[in-house]
Amino acid sequence: MPFEDLGFAKVDHHRAIRHGIPEVIFGKGKTPEQIIAIASRLSDQAHNVLITRVDPDAATRICGALPTEAEHFPLSGAIRIWRDRTVHGKGKLAVVCAGTTDIPVAEEAQITAELMGNEVDAIYDIGVAGIHRLMQNRERLTASRVVVVCAGMEGALPSVVGGLVSCPVIAVPTSVGYGASFHGLAALLGMLNSCASNVIVVNIDNGFGAGYVASLINRM
Amino acid sequence: MPFEDLGFAKVDHHRAIRHGIPEVIFGKGKTPEQIIAIASRLSDQAHNVLITRVDPDAATRICGALPTEAEHFPLSGAIRIWRDRTVHGKGKLAVVCAGTTDIPVAEEAQITAELMGNEVDAIYDIGVAGIHRLMQNRERLTASRVVVVCAGMEGALPSVVGGLVSCPVIAVPTSVGYGASFHGLAALLGMLNSCASNVIVVNIDNGFGAGYVASLINRM
Amino acid sequence: MPFEDLGFAKVDHHRAIRHGIPEVIFGKGKTPEQIIAIASRLSDQAHNVLITRVDPDAATRICGALPTEAEHFPLSGAIRIWRDRTVHGKGKLAVVCAGTTDIPVAEEAQITAELMGNEVDAIYDIGVAGIHRLMQNRERLTASRVVVVCAGMEGALPSVVGGLVSCPVIAVPTSVGYGASFHGLAALLGMLNSCASNVIVVNIDNGFGAGYVASLINRM
Amino acid sequence: MPFEDLGFAKVDHHRAIRHGIPEVIFGKGKTPEQIIAIASRLSDQAHNVLITRVDPDAATRICGALPTEAEHFPLSGAIRIWRDRTVHGKGKLAVVCAGTTDIPVAEEAQITAELMGNEVDAIYDIGVAGIHRLMQNRERLTASRVVVVCAGMEGALPSVVGGLVSCPVIAVPTSVGYGASFHGLAALLGMLNSCASNVIVVNIDNGFGAGYVASLINRM
Amino acid sequence: MPFEDLGFAKVDHHRAIRHGIPEVIFGKGKTPEQIIAIASRLSDQAHNVLITRVDPDAATRICGALPTEAEHFPLSGAIRIWRDRTVHGKGKLAVVCAGTTDIPVAEEAQITAELMGNEVDAIYDIGVAGIHRLMQNRERLTASRVVVVCAGMEGALPSVVGGLVSCPVIAVPTSVGYGASFHGLAALLGMLNSCASNVIVVNIDNGFGAGYVASLINRM
Amino acid sequence: MPFEDLGFAKVDHHRAIRHGIPEVIFGKGKTPEQIIAIASRLSDQAHNVLITRVDPDAATRICGALPTEAEHFPLSGAIRIWRDRTVHGKGKLAVVCAGTTDIPVAEEAQITAELMGNEVDAIYDIGVAGIHRLMQNRERLTASRVVVVCAGMEGALPSVVGGLVSCPVIAVPTSVGYGASFHGLAALLGMLNSCASNVIVVNIDNGFGAGYVASLINRM
Amino acid sequence: MPFEDLGFAKVDHHRAIRHGIPEVIFGKGKTPEQIIAIASRLSDQAHNVLITRVDPDAATRICGALPTEAEHFPLSGAIRIWRDRTVHGKGKLAVVCAGTTDIPVAEEAQITAELMGNEVDAIYDIGVAGIHRLMQNRERLTASRVVVVCAGMEGALPSVVGGLVSCPVIAVPTSVGYGASFHGLAALLGMLNSCASNVIVVNIDNGFGAGYVASLINRM
Amino acid sequence: MPFEDLGFAKVDHHRAIRHGIPEVIFGKGKTPEQIIAIASRLSDQAHNVLITRVDPDAATRICGALPTEAEHFPLSGAIRIWRDRTVHGKGKLAVVCAGTTDIPVAEEAQITAELMGNEVDAIYDIGVAGIHRLMQNRERLTASRVVVVCAGMEGALPSVVGGLVSCPVIAVPTSVGYGASFHGLAALLGMLNSCASNVIVVNIDNGFGAGYVASLINRM
Repeated sequence: MPFEDLGFAKVDHHRAIRHGIPEVIFGKGKTPEQIIAIASRLSDQAHNVLITRVDPDAATRICGALPTEAEHFPLSGAIRIWRDRTVHGKGKLAVVCAGTTDIPVAEEAQITAELMGNEVDAIYDIGVAGIHRLMQNRERLTASRVVVVCAGMEGALPSVVGGLVSCPVIAVPTSVGYGASFHGLAALLGMLNSCASNVIVVNIDNGFGAGYVASLINRM
Repeated sequence: MPFEDLGFAKVDHHRAIRHGIPEVIFGKGKTPEQIIAIASRLSDQAHNVLITRVDPDAATRICGALPTEAEHFPLSGAIRIWRDRTVHGKGKLAVVCAGTTDIPVAEEAQITAELMGNEVDAIYDIGVAGIHRLMQNRERLTASRVVVVCAGMEGALPSVVGGLVSCPVIAVPTSVGYGASFHGLAALLGMLNSCASNVIVVNIDNGFGAGYVASLINRM
Repeated sequence: MPFEDLGFAKVDHHRAIRHGIPEVIFGKGKTPEQIIAIASRLSDQAHNVLITRVDPDAATRICGALPTEAEHFPLSGAIRIWRDRTVHGKGKLAVVCAGTTDIPVAEEAQITAELMGNEVDAIYDIGVAGIHRLMQNRERLTASRVVVVCAGMEGALPSVVGGLVSCPVIAVPTSVGYGASFHGLAALLGMLNSCASNVIVVNIDNGFGAGYVASLINRM
Repeated sequence: MPFEDLGFAKVDHHRAIRHGIPEVIFGKGKTPEQIIAIASRLSDQAHNVLITRVDPDAATRICGALPTEAEHFPLSGAIRIWRDRTVHGKGKLAVVCAGTTDIPVAEEAQITAELMGNEVDAIYDIGVAGIHRLMQNRERLTASRVVVVCAGMEGALPSVVGGLVSCPVIAVPTSVGYGASFHGLAALLGMLNSCASNVIVVNIDNGFGAGYVASLINRM
Repeated sequence: MPFEDLGFAKVDHHRAIRHGIPEVIFGKGKTPEQIIAIASRLSDQAHNVLITRVDPDAATRICGALPTEAEHFPLSGAIRIWRDRTVHGKGKLAVVCAGTTDIPVAEEAQITAELMGNEVDAIYDIGVAGIHRLMQNRERLTASRVVVVCAGMEGALPSVVGGLVSCPVIAVPTSVGYGASFHGLAALLGMLNSCASNVIVVNIDNGFGAGYVASLINRM
Repeated sequence: MPFEDLGFAKVDHHRAIRHGIPEVIFGKGKTPEQIIAIASRLSDQAHNVLITRVDPDAATRICGALPTEAEHFPLSGAIRIWRDRTVHGKGKLAVVCAGTTDIPVAEEAQITAELMGNEVDAIYDIGVAGIHRLMQNRERLTASRVVVVCAGMEGALPSVVGGLVSCPVIAVPTSVGYGASFHGLAALLGMLNSCASNVIVVNIDNGFGAGYVASLINRM
Repeated sequence: MPFEDLGFAKVDHHRAIRHGIPEVIFGKGKTPEQIIAIASRLSDQAHNVLITRVDPDAATRICGALPTEAEHFPLSGAIRIWRDRTVHGKGKLAVVCAGTTDIPVAEEAQITAELMGNEVDAIYDIGVAGIHRLMQNRERLTASRVVVVCAGMEGALPSVVGGLVSCPVIAVPTSVGYGASFHGLAALLGMLNSCASNVIVVNIDNGFGAGYVASLINRM
Repeated sequence: MPFEDLGFAKVDHHRAIRHGIPEVIFGKGKTPEQIIAIASRLSDQAHNVLITRVDPDAATRICGALPTEAEHFPLSGAIRIWRDRTVHGKGKLAVVCAGTTDIPVAEEAQITAELMGNEVDAIYDIGVAGIHRLMQNRERLTASRVVVVCAGMEGALPSVVGGLVSCPVIAVPTSVGYGASFHGLAALLGMLNSCASNVIVVNIDNGFGAGYVASLINRM
């Protein structure tokens, strides 16, 4: 039987077996009851479970209903059950962010990549206007097999990182900024138009997606 | 000396050595004279050269000024010098497109991937409204290490392909469509919001970028 | 006299007679007092009444002022008085949604279609990234005379469903998503550009409109 | 074998059998050679063929390569082979347009609907600023089972027509206008926000899609 | 001395004398303290004062600090001091709105026009989908020297009214709607593209501006 | 009989009688044959006829088919038949433009207003960055009963003029500009947000509409 | 060592030495804990510190944790430590705003410029619709070496000021307005399209950036 | 007399005297006749004249009508009369561009700055993806008093340059790019959101404005 039907959701117990990856619940827009129901089924059958974008009040209720091993990450709103800690990545994976306010998105990428069996090197607050900070971390960057770069505002960091490394760079625009950042649109457009050929892009604030694809690549 | 300065361009002879990849000239917006000057320098020193987005009249002039081995691809406007045919990819790489009108973009991805040492499996005209066509190609898709998917209009194909394979899917929105496609914006937004976690995105019509990153991944 | 003038609203008692359809009040933006006044007049004269988009606090007050037969649907914010349960539809009508978070919109479509005399087959959580879930419901889809498809994010589901059935597919983009979904714009554009010729579109989150038109078609 | 593979296109000979509808080639973005190759295969096997959006020069070449029965419609750029003239529609279908400049889109809808076996009542140049023209055609509108309404600029006509009839109204925004019409965006948004509940929308200038769905509905 | 300088504002006592019109304070974005300070100065010197867009809490404080003759209008958030009730308009001025939810904007227009010395005929809830309601009010419309039309959603009403009357029609798009209304953008674009030549447009929700210009015209 | 039906157009012979205004044909998007057919009917029955937005080649053909009294205005592409030169305006009407490149739009407004019986004072090239030029024309502005102001780029001129005069100011954004003018969008938004209360707006480049409404107002 | 690493932020003690300018913390999006940690380090080493965009509750906590000399500015949400009051500017610097509601942005510019050693002449509430107010301040404007102009709504003030002075004018669009101001977009586009050649632009509401660059220029 | 009135233009002979700067004609949208007429008047009275954005055919005609000293720059479409070569700048001014295709915009900035009396250091093709090229030019950048940076695509270069220098950086987004560059919008938004505090922005492709303001600053 490929999935279990809860009415409001079809819970797929195949995926973990099929892909060897954690079960994931996108929390935003679901009621706490729905999240608890889905997470309970998954928690019974899967080794690793990730719930993203849970608001603080709901997080308390949800953690209360899950096994005590569930960790809560308040900055990004993630909840993680991490039982199977097998390393799948063939090398290090870097998660970089431009400023302090981009950390919630970077954290989501980091948590995801760890849960999928990667050693993650997190490098925070190295925006392009202080290029010397970036240059001092150049070796850590070139030592990675994939680099995730989270940046808001003008979103220029992936282009500069892309020029420094020869591996794939996954760019995550964040909604950090104000005015003409238009909630991450400026960063998104900047990253899509990157002059560095090794840059690929995910949705605004999609730390999860970046961590997920980076993990797939690091297994290859 | 890291680069040669032509005044209007700094020609970088390092990159091929550094990355083991072809030299690339983005043709659009450059005069034929500029392209010929840069291509001539590169052609003398690099094994493989790719010029993209050259309009038909300029292509004739440029090919006339390059060694006869230069091939011209009229659909995508690419010119290719392919001397070093070493295979670098560890497996097959698929390039898929949704409709006949998406072929120019798919062709750019295919040419790029071939020039970077990949065996490419091209699968054309398998849009989501005829899901049986897609399903019949399922094995070719799952046999690939990376899949590039080019689609205009609603840009739904990457999500469906993403659900069928477990490898990274590089989605290329194309400017194919009319009215509310807004020159590829509809497809771009669709792909950025893909519900398949293994989908990553490049700029509208950026077949080159997709082929480039797919090649990097296929080497890993 | 075709309508009754309450000053702030002209209440139309003709419509039910003219079209054989329920009276409908769009709740959003009206004060509870206005809704109660209009609903009371309609409730006295019409068999079936539907109030949409009422926020939870107002719903309690409004239900308290209406006959006890009024049902409240908290997910979609609808209130329904369903006295005349005559079946008008000539066959089954399917309401499909891509994910759990699209259910409020699908529920609005379902409630509307039921109130207009249709047997509704609700199929939830069958997004395109898990195409096998969709394929397992293929027979239920082809057994329907009209299909309403609600989807947020990339909004790809109507195109795939459109390719599987030969009847009209009414696509409802939902505001589910984040970042570059731009509150449903990505899904809306995707659906307008569908490569399936039998797809037609209503406004973002307009479950009511989809249920309404689907009911008109199912009577034909 | 469900389709024939031409390399650049997969020609589907199933659809006509499956749906009882004409074969359709969307001409825009295809080379004349591609169109001729696909149309020739289809013309051998299908009764009715429609090619849309062909530019004038290409049309001459394409018509020269097709059987002489092929008709060319210069306003909309359509080419039609109409062999099987069976009537499938259960009643009349109206195609309405707001102004003279909307006629190319209305013509595409009309041609499509005729080819799919409908009697079409075409009513042109009845914009909302001259409401008496519209009112004089009221009976023709109410005598139709489905109404297609094409309008550019503010796109208000579908709402007014929607209030006059009780059947489904398929609204087609056209790119007619200038300045803040933004190539049909103003009309598209207007139609999506119609206050008439029986209005559904297709893409800007998509006369074909409107004629197609109207035909499906008229068969029911 | 043409104006009095409060530091945070330059209060102009000239305008009333110069134009024979009320003093106006746009309340949104000003602190209650700022509004009270400006209104007090104006109230001492001018006959008529209008404060617009005051939120409910601030309104209570502001009214408490003004002469008791100040009236508060909760729907639109306006406060009015109306001492000089001279009639300046040469005829009647109509204020029309499409739906109940457009009343706050229409009310702002009405209050403004009354304060500037006009007899106002308010006609509410006559949207285009119920054209008979509009037609029944045709005589009241043609009896007016200027017509203000407030409408959200598709914003079609000004075009239809514009075709019925020969005087200037001032169209006010409202932010009423959801989804693709984009907070009044759909209505705004529709009105700017009106096919009725006598329609002119003001900003979204700008009932004040419409009432102001209508008053200027009605004096001519 | 209120209108004559040409198939592709319904020619209205009522309007001139009803409103006492010229017959107008919007030329853009109509074929020369269509324009000639409509203009010929109108020219036989109406005193004054205006055709707008005709491209140069079509203009030659159209003028050749009309009575010799037809004047052609190449900058704006207008053609005018002006037989009845009765003055209807009660005073002077000013047409102002910000720069030389705005003249085509201003010319369309001027031609329209003249044809509707107004004495027009044309004041060109008085942009806001040279405020002394504007101030030197202040008396001509205050001597007018209505002012039409055409401006592209930032569209600031109507606000400044609006502060100098107490009559209605009709603002016409023009598509003059480049880059972030977005074909007149910047000017349009600027004018809609004018801080001068007597400013009302028409569509981008809509000189005709501005001249038309200004004429209606000047008759009052 | 060029910077100190707090994990979530790299605190740069070089900048003050390098540029002779204050340390700045952009408060929005940072937690109070993060701001306090960074500000404490900076406060120990730098003469002058500026924290911008702090919400009221956080401001109380942050000020409590800083030396008592820290000043809080509630309108703009800024906190300032101003120890070194050396004058660096070679002349006066003017900060101008169009309306009372633009003051928070102007205040941020003023605070920044003062902290960087400038004498600031603040001129508030001189919008373009009252050009006499502007003209009366003409001498103060021409006496300045740089002018910062903050304006929302149509954003026309920088163009008019730009025509009156010959020095650089730094235009700051503000998010003041409603409807088609689109949160400052209208003002931003207006300023970017200014017909005055001496106008340059910063982000919406970016008073800090304007004050910063104005200070750099005033030192030259 | 402050200006000469040519009817279609008011030629200002004051400006040169007033500001000590060249006379400038923005060529785009003006007819060759208009340009020649204005340029002839200016050429008689002013030392230095600049005409921008002239298309190639018009340039030949215009140069033929001007004194032979007029130079034509085909890349940017500028024509320059440079008689007074006094140096006004107090130091060097750098004009930088990211790629070869940005040169036309950079050339316009360079020509303008030279004409206004500056020594210009032009540094071309130093995009951020090859950060070593940029670093090698670091000394030339820090030796400049103002830096103009032209970049299309993601527009990241000004942020990186802004971090390397402490003087004002004038960022010019160019329309170079394709797809999601949206004709320079991506670069414009990127620059407006720059994390470097010394970056200010002009309109897309506005090389003239950047050169103009840079010259004003370099005189200080």
